[in-house]
Amino acid sequence: MKIKAALPKGMRDFLPKDVVRRQYITQIIREVFELYAYQAIETPVMENLNTLTGKYGEEGDKLLFKVLNSGDYLSKTDDQILQAKDSRKLTAQISEKGLRYDLTVPLARYVVQNQNDLSFPFKRYHIAPVWRADRPQKGRYREFYQCDADVIGSESLYNEVELMQIYAKVFAKLNLEVKIKYNNRKILLGLMQSIGLEGKETEGIAILDKLDKIGLDKVIEEYKALELNDANLSLLRKLLETNDVSLLPTSDMLELGKKELAFLDKFKPENAFFDLSLARGLDYYTGCIFEVASTEYEIGSIGGGGRYDNLTEMFGKSDLTGVGISFGLERIYDVMEALNRFPENLNASSKLLLVHFSEANQNYAFQALNSLRDAGIHAEMYPDLVKFPKQLKYANDKNIPYVAIVGDKEMEQGLFALKNMETGEQQELGLDRLISFLKSH
Amino acid sequence: MKIKAALPKGMRDFLPKDVVRRQYITQIIREVFELYAYQAIETPVMENLNTLTGKYGEEGDKLLFKVLNSGDYLSKTDDQILQAKDSRKLTAQISEKGLRYDLTVPLARYVVQNQNDLSFPFKRYHIAPVWRADRPQKGRYREFYQCDADVIGSESLYNEVELMQIYAKVFAKLNLEVKIKYNNRKILLGLMQSIGLEGKETEGIAILDKLDKIGLDKVIEEYKALELNDANLSLLRKLLETNDVSLLPTSDMLELGKKELAFLDKFKPENAFFDLSLARGLDYYTGCIFEVASTEYEIGSIGGGGRYDNLTEMFGKSDLTGVGISFGLERIYDVMEALNRFPENLNASSKLLLVHFSEANQNYAFQALNSLRDAGIHAEMYPDLVKFPKQLKYANDKNIPYVAIVGDKEMEQGLFALKNMETGEQQELGLDRLISFLKSH
Repeated sequence: MKIKAALPKGMRDFLPKDVVRRQYITQIIREVFELYAYQAIETPVMENLNTLTGKYGEEGDKLLFKVLNSGDYLSKTDDQILQAKDSRKLTAQISEKGLRYDLTVPLARYVVQNQNDLSFPFKRYHIAPVWRADRPQKGRYREFYQCDADVIGSESLYNEVELMQIYAKVFAKLNLEVKIKYNNRKILLGLMQSIGLEGKETEGIAILDKLDKIGLDKVIEEYKALELNDANLSLLRKLLETNDVSLLPTSDMLELGKKELAFLDKFKPENAFFDLSLARGLDYYTGCIFEVASTEYEIGSIGGGGRYDNLTEMFGKSDLTGVGISFGLERIYDVMEALNRFPENLNASSKLLLVHFSEANQNYAFQALNSLRDAGIHAEMYPDLVKFPKQLKYANDKNIPYVAIVGDKEMEQGLFALKNMETGEQQELGLDRLISFLKSH
Repeated sequence: MKIKAALPKGMRDFLPKDVVRRQYITQIIREVFELYAYQAIETPVMENLNTLTGKYGEEGDKLLFKVLNSGDYLSKTDDQILQAKDSRKLTAQISEKGLRYDLTVPLARYVVQNQNDLSFPFKRYHIAPVWRADRPQKGRYREFYQCDADVIGSESLYNEVELMQIYAKVFAKLNLEVKIKYNNRKILLGLMQSIGLEGKETEGIAILDKLDKIGLDKVIEEYKALELNDANLSLLRKLLETNDVSLLPTSDMLELGKKELAFLDKFKPENAFFDLSLARGLDYYTGCIFEVASTEYEIGSIGGGGRYDNLTEMFGKSDLTGVGISFGLERIYDVMEALNRFPENLNASSKLLLVHFSEANQNYAFQALNSLRDAGIHAEMYPDLVKFPKQLKYANDKNIPYVAIVGDKEMEQGLFALKNMETGEQQELGLDRLISFLKSH
């Protein structure tokens, strides 16, 4: 039976040239994480469903990829559920595992499960794919990478500063100009309470989150609908226009937030800025929050994070605070490509192809190939006996920069005709000089 | 609700020190693959089930992890199947995707789907996890890594030689002594036909495969049960005792095999040996086959591969031959650990911890930390204000080799008291000398 070579919806293959570019980005992120003393961990792609469900809201639960139990999974199911064709209830009976939705819940599970083998504060990074059964669209995939660094078990604001420094350093190394925005949930919470939105803080913060999209006037209108009085409305407008913390009202919560903010202001990297309108959607943040945007290319946020408390509480370990950031690999890739910032010499291919005209030439070339590889040069020989133009086309298609031609004449003289595939320049070299040339070019 | 922090059966977390060791192995494999001009590809962890099923035998189909369709997946199912509680039939209606079982079938699908973007011969490598719902046992996990290199679309035996060279180079770099065994399916097939097992070749080869386990006498007994005559039985015994190709009968198939063997004999690495009893279980091999075993530690094969034809035929593209090898990461890890071959300086931790006694010390230390990191030194500061012994314990637990103590005296003098955590040696250094010391130690 013939099967169509196809992929599930929203999933992607990567060609060698794509892999090299993606690795260029993740390698820089990895190096900076390690420079800042974050350690790599790995967790399985599958988690128990009771670890995952209920952590991402009702919508998130629907987007979890669930794995069917092995064996005769229907044998113990409830007849009524089957008869009613109740998919949701049946799922609980036939599926115990799911693919991870992010790297944060697995981190919480990991920290509790492995706590006796970890040193706290625990600084870990994790660069790995996650899966969401979202409707695929441009730039949104059902399998995508997250690149996370988190510190668990330290209240110090130096962690927040370091995480902003990591953003600054990574994007500088990627040759991308960015703006790192920071704010504090305590300030947002205190502000909402101060202007009469006690009990409606989440709603109030959600409105703020729309500022970029709908503009200040419409934001103020939405607050009006929440029955804010005129004084509070004009205070809000002024605060959002000026971004001036000194205009904030006074409350215990606000004082706490301002103190934290002052620390960040003091140590922040040059390209980090306080932004009172930064809200971040996720409810679990409790302190500082971050977001990064390109200043050169419009694409939305390319990174974000913040401090959260009690992440591990659901697994029975309380009093662990955490703070972390995430890099949006897919969007960073799109920005790099749009702005043409990948280094020119990024190449998935070898440096040299040995081409030949006969079995004897090939035999000779293969001996040389061994020496080239022993010298650390990424080289290959066209493996089959095919016509010269076909071998050259292979080098060209694969972007191999040099070709060494081995014909009978070269064999007799112990030489290789080295051709620069870009300039067309050609020179004859012995093996030793060929090796030293390729090592230095 | 409290949830138990636990993992699905047969799945593993990796601690930072494990990750570093696993990466040490995969990085060497990766570097050698690239030295030999193999290019990295990536494919999704999920494939369509019609890509996966039927490729690994009936047993393999049962071991596939299947992913439940999203949404109201029961709405279109057959009532009769539900009533009969027929799990196998229902699976086909509620699951379209599965987790990959190996990297070979995804490669075949990839090559056909992306053929217009690839250059042939296509040399690719892929280092990634695969999943099998096997019964977990010591050394066997439900999620494990495969490290594969394959050449698609080249008949040349130079590929076979290169793949054996890759084995030799990787294990040399890992400081492991191994024996690379090779054989040829054409020889095995021809031999079985020549001794009267025409039509029963697979059975005959399967007996051979047991030689290591049950010994020569029992193997000969099993052949006897297949009604081989005495002449053939004694020929077989002699062949297996001597490993001498010149004793092989003559047939077209055997001549083909012998010719290929002669080529490998000529170019093989020093630690590769022809082994007539090497059979490899998998049916799809058609030419040379390989297997690698440690000569220092008994654990079974730590690598294997061979040539296969028509892998892409099921996806509608015929006439593509392939040859490839695989490294068994989990077993290689076990051998490395048992023989203590991981380098001593493999460390998941930073090189230096800055410790302090007060807010002012910490502030001072943090400035120094920035300079250390700018110089590329992996360093960290204990983020919270805690007692000195707790900070030292953290350095000790994490295997951080150096600690720099910053007290008031050090601040005044602009110095750091650098302590070697292993020897206990201590010296006072200014920042510049601290940096240059750490760079050179």
